[in-house]
Amino acid sequence: MALQQQAQVLRLPTAGPNDTTALAQALDRGLLRADEIVGIVGKTEGNGCVNDFTRGYATLALKVLLAERLACTMAAVEQRIALVMSGGTEGGLSPHLTVFCRRKAEERLPDAGKRLAIGIGFTRRFRPEEIGRAAQIRETAAAVRAAMAEAGIDDAADAHFVQIKCPLLTQERIGEARARGADTATQDTYESMALSRGASALGVAVALGEICAAQVADAAVGSDWSLFSGVASTSAGVELQRNEIIVLGNATGWTGDLRIEHDVMADAIDLEAARRALSRLGLAAAGQVPTEARERIVAVLAKAEAAPAGMIRGRRHIMLDDSDIHSTRHARALVGGVLAGLIGDTMLYVSGGAEHQGPAGGGPVAIIARVGSP
Amino acid sequence: MALQQQAQVLRLPTAGPNDTTALAQALDRGLLRADEIVGIVGKTEGNGCVNDFTRGYATLALKVLLAERLACTMAAVEQRIALVMSGGTEGGLSPHLTVFCRRKAEERLPDAGKRLAIGIGFTRRFRPEEIGRAAQIRETAAAVRAAMAEAGIDDAADAHFVQIKCPLLTQERIGEARARGADTATQDTYESMALSRGASALGVAVALGEICAAQVADAAVGSDWSLFSGVASTSAGVELQRNEIIVLGNATGWTGDLRIEHDVMADAIDLEAARRALSRLGLAAAGQVPTEARERIVAVLAKAEAAPAGMIRGRRHIMLDDSDIHSTRHARALVGGVLAGLIGDTMLYVSGGAEHQGPAGGGPVAIIARVGSP
Amino acid sequence: MALQQQAQVLRLPTAGPNDTTALAQALDRGLLRADEIVGIVGKTEGNGCVNDFTRGYATLALKVLLAERLACTMAAVEQRIALVMSGGTEGGLSPHLTVFCRRKAEERLPDAGKRLAIGIGFTRRFRPEEIGRAAQIRETAAAVRAAMAEAGIDDAADAHFVQIKCPLLTQERIGEARARGADTATQDTYESMALSRGASALGVAVALGEICAAQVADAAVGSDWSLFSGVASTSAGVELQRNEIIVLGNATGWTGDLRIEHDVMADAIDLEAARRALSRLGLAAAGQVPTEARERIVAVLAKAEAAPAGMIRGRRHIMLDDSDIHSTRHARALVGGVLAGLIGDTMLYVSGGAEHQGPAGGGPVAIIARVGSP
Amino acid sequence: MALQQQAQVLRLPTAGPNDTTALAQALDRGLLRADEIVGIVGKTEGNGCVNDFTRGYATLALKVLLAERLACTMAAVEQRIALVMSGGTEGGLSPHLTVFCRRKAEERLPDAGKRLAIGIGFTRRFRPEEIGRAAQIRETAAAVRAAMAEAGIDDAADAHFVQIKCPLLTQERIGEARARGADTATQDTYESMALSRGASALGVAVALGEICAAQVADAAVGSDWSLFSGVASTSAGVELQRNEIIVLGNATGWTGDLRIEHDVMADAIDLEAARRALSRLGLAAAGQVPTEARERIVAVLAKAEAAPAGMIRGRRHIMLDDSDIHSTRHARALVGGVLAGLIGDTMLYVSGGAEHQGPAGGGPVAIIARVGSP
Repeated sequence: MALQQQAQVLRLPTAGPNDTTALAQALDRGLLRADEIVGIVGKTEGNGCVNDFTRGYATLALKVLLAERLACTMAAVEQRIALVMSGGTEGGLSPHLTVFCRRKAEERLPDAGKRLAIGIGFTRRFRPEEIGRAAQIRETAAAVRAAMAEAGIDDAADAHFVQIKCPLLTQERIGEARARGADTATQDTYESMALSRGASALGVAVALGEICAAQVADAAVGSDWSLFSGVASTSAGVELQRNEIIVLGNATGWTGDLRIEHDVMADAIDLEAARRALSRLGLAAAGQVPTEARERIVAVLAKAEAAPAGMIRGRRHIMLDDSDIHSTRHARALVGGVLAGLIGDTMLYVSGGAEHQGPAGGGPVAIIARVGSP
Repeated sequence: MALQQQAQVLRLPTAGPNDTTALAQALDRGLLRADEIVGIVGKTEGNGCVNDFTRGYATLALKVLLAERLACTMAAVEQRIALVMSGGTEGGLSPHLTVFCRRKAEERLPDAGKRLAIGIGFTRRFRPEEIGRAAQIRETAAAVRAAMAEAGIDDAADAHFVQIKCPLLTQERIGEARARGADTATQDTYESMALSRGASALGVAVALGEICAAQVADAAVGSDWSLFSGVASTSAGVELQRNEIIVLGNATGWTGDLRIEHDVMADAIDLEAARRALSRLGLAAAGQVPTEARERIVAVLAKAEAAPAGMIRGRRHIMLDDSDIHSTRHARALVGGVLAGLIGDTMLYVSGGAEHQGPAGGGPVAIIARVGSP
Repeated sequence: MALQQQAQVLRLPTAGPNDTTALAQALDRGLLRADEIVGIVGKTEGNGCVNDFTRGYATLALKVLLAERLACTMAAVEQRIALVMSGGTEGGLSPHLTVFCRRKAEERLPDAGKRLAIGIGFTRRFRPEEIGRAAQIRETAAAVRAAMAEAGIDDAADAHFVQIKCPLLTQERIGEARARGADTATQDTYESMALSRGASALGVAVALGEICAAQVADAAVGSDWSLFSGVASTSAGVELQRNEIIVLGNATGWTGDLRIEHDVMADAIDLEAARRALSRLGLAAAGQVPTEARERIVAVLAKAEAAPAGMIRGRRHIMLDDSDIHSTRHARALVGGVLAGLIGDTMLYVSGGAEHQGPAGGGPVAIIARVGSP
Repeated sequence: MALQQQAQVLRLPTAGPNDTTALAQALDRGLLRADEIVGIVGKTEGNGCVNDFTRGYATLALKVLLAERLACTMAAVEQRIALVMSGGTEGGLSPHLTVFCRRKAEERLPDAGKRLAIGIGFTRRFRPEEIGRAAQIRETAAAVRAAMAEAGIDDAADAHFVQIKCPLLTQERIGEARARGADTATQDTYESMALSRGASALGVAVALGEICAAQVADAAVGSDWSLFSGVASTSAGVELQRNEIIVLGNATGWTGDLRIEHDVMADAIDLEAARRALSRLGLAAAGQVPTEARERIVAVLAKAEAAPAGMIRGRRHIMLDDSDIHSTRHARALVGGVLAGLIGDTMLYVSGGAEHQGPAGGGPVAIIARVGSP
């Protein structure tokens, strides 16, 4: 019988977007191995909007470090490790990197039930006219299923967080399509980010059976908010033309002491959703998670957005009318506060722009924790 | 034996800083009487910083309405009603007005134990050189004690929230002092806001015996953060030259079904402090306050600030290094999220700039709720 | 033969949005008469975007003052005086009010050629489905022609600045239309501001023969930037449902020493356009306008916008990619700097959002100056 | 007789902070040689304040490119090339890099009078307690003189722009000093940036005889604004502990067709100062610089700041009261507009934070232009 795999998750603080010191030290001390890293999901301190250069800066600094440690080119680093940076640490959120590693166990370990499993997947490159449309949904669904299969996650109910980095349209790409007589979903590059995120999330929903493929015509993307995935977390970047996928779930065939659970926040202040996820990890508490339980928590991953109707439980919010601070910034601060109050920690991954990721105004929240070794 | 007094607290949504519709309707419907209003504490949607004109705009709109309803001048409105507007509804906070009324009970009611009591007080006008210094502390302490006595709050432990509006220095006032050979605490008008807030909070601390008067030299204001009040909430405004004080506590001699409790958040994510206050009101819950209990809550009042050391429980926050969004805005969003997650409501009064109001990085939180009529 | 009319223009500094001190003093000193004021055009220091409450605050403060001075209600003030507040004093722009008055000359004066003439006009109220469409264009054109006729401006070439305040769509208005089965030009209330400004500007263009009515289908509004007026300056506000129009031009039948000229800036740095306008007023200079000439200038009125293509003369600008500062704020700062450098004064009216007001990336600039009494 | 030196200045657009494409192409095409680059001065599109990471991002991207082209380490790139990035392209300013190269002429050329000369200098490393004080002034003065001597700039009147990158205090550095019993000029790291910039500028003033060394006690730094240099442009960065100096002037011994001139803007709208500099370069014009002259201009370098008294020529500005947009951002936008209106170009280097760099509210402006080859 094959050796099990083992997932490792390290959460490391940063002192700035380019700060790779904690990662370098962890590598130096042998806490993790560079060649076992499959993904790094980071929170950087930019505005998380169009002119947030902290994402690219963090990515460049990580590539410089990892190219050195892996003795390869920076381009090769990008090929082997999914680097997903999300900007915005409003409120009290603390900038950090979460490093995902995967290795073969060194010896056959006793069966421990399902443990954290990490699957990686990629779609083919998209043509510009496919972005934000059914083609992107379909290909994403296929790639998510493949990543689940590769990780041995057999049951859709065992997939708890699917992080996707997806492409966007640029003026060049729109022009290239037009030259071929093809029409893109939008002419607006900013809007293309939302459409690409939305289509990618719907791809996850299709893969996991949350919605039927037949339900999602092109027109639903970015408009029919009743269609959503409860586990998708997607972000668009200019630097790629395909979707890159990290599936986090629980599966047999994996060992170690980590498990992941999730739930769906119905709105931005739905504390109870996070408490249900905690409860499934055996970390239930009245009030704030106590110290001992908190120390078992390895990562908290959530999506946030301003309720489109301008109301949270009948109370007006001002996020969508604020021309000084973008609504995604308000939303991250709010959800960050809700979760930090519960968890007692501000080093949380809360990402904005939750199109088709959870219901309108809400979003998925996933928690990875040490549940005891086999 | 004298008739009891009765406090009334109405929380009203606003659709903008100048929206007095809900208050006008409440007056029209007889839900409250204009001549019983003693104070209005509002959250407006400006930035809460220097160029926040929503505070003044709300104040002007309220004065226009109340002058009409009270058939007096706008100047007279200001004399009889404390209008305290606090800017900043970051995250999900919902702009609103909390209206405080006071009336004689119409008949002698059975004793119900201590009930919400409202005391109003004023200091004399301060000379510019007194602001932010021992004189302001001393006079504030005396006025707080007087307001407590007037409200029948005998025990310092029964004072749960002391809202103060205090003056600041302007170039004119600094110049006037200098012309007399007097030196002000600062030449910087912005800094004078912090010093005035701080000295006013220390005045509360002295009045309530939280610190001894002997402890507070001029130099402690704005520097020795170990000295603080756990119930003070102060804000500085250009439009006055004295301190205006609203003391909220519980006292015999008051009837109705309202009580107030408070606790001190040790840091911005100290959910447990708010839970303790809820618990004393009989509203304890394991997670988010359930609907029925939530409907008993009439007001939530809290102060927020960025931890000066740049850390929350050892995690770096970026509030103090952010040149796009002022730290007070981040802090309100964060504390607003923490409390909204607990209470299940975003219509909260969270105010920034908590010098000597709770410990560094923390602040008082007070809750008023209906606990059952006598 | 009829007595001439006389226009008076007073530019008054403000110390804040609600500061009406300079206006009150001018009234007290008899520099102008309240009953001769026909319009006040102000620059306030808000962000000029959705949540700019300084416009409303200034308007309310002016209504309070003028109601007192005119011994009428605040509603009556609004009926008789066009109050147009434009937010945003980025860069060095200095907040101020420009007060326009109109009176009969007290005696027949010798003919002085054409002098500054002020015409006021109003459209009927628009139904929601008319906003941003041909109906708004057509009615605006008619009202502009009527205002010109009323002011005696016979020749389109003599109309140099047409300031319009126009309505926008709200969720309520959209819903009301839908209930009648009518479709509005947009569902997006923010976008409706741009469409209303654009249609109003096209109305000016039609009135002045800059474009033919036949050219402007609904679809052109907000999309065909080749259609524009070189003298329109429009701003949308929630508080009205019709268009209010101030036409500034030169006409016989008016006396005094004021004249107005304008030109069209082809882009944001088109200094030469402003120099041409100065030249026509006899204020040409090499370099910055010298002190003596500067003192003859009574008002400078301009529109600004970020070049939609992201370039100014082939150089990339970042205004449209900045998620911290709205592009209209950058554009006002830039055009404000260009004009302040030329004029040697920062008390300029530079307004953002120049849809169909001048060419894409450019806008009208008008100057009123004292050219010598008859 | 020795061969002359030749300065080369290339202004290259960037599409983002990390965009080195234009530089790479210029190197590929042989327009410049990597080993002749002595300094790169860039404008990046961040906020120019504390959390502006575009400076570091641009620096890292340049180091990656230049290490490759020079076949050396990134650390070695930093040793040989002064990389000075200044954040903030508000208004219409266009992000770009200005690359300064220096080479020996290939053959002896006829004498052409003084031509653009580039001198590079460094101070020793400063101890934390020296920053912002007389020691930094004195050492900077010596290093500026040395850089002038090295470049053959004999006459102080021939030094037209001195760009300095200087260190700042961090908590670590302050602590290290304190451990030795030494006291730093400030405990506030942000304030240390201003003090270091100020002391560095005063060092330039001393070197050029603009002020006497005897005039400048520690206490003058950051307080006595009557002391300033008309050619200094300084910026503080965390990545160095010494001052790095680029002196730009005119000198014999240099050939080519470039010259530099400068003047001092008395306030932010002092167009005439820039016109005087243009005039000395033979580029005088009545209004905007015409196309042919504009094409001779190679770089425009200026400093900007908000007038500390809150007024520009008696008109109130709001820069210092704006809690949404930092005053340095307003000031760059304003001065950028003034100069873009004159030059007809937005690719200008306008840098904020002008302590002791020009008079209060003003600053130096220098222009490099092609004046014709020998």
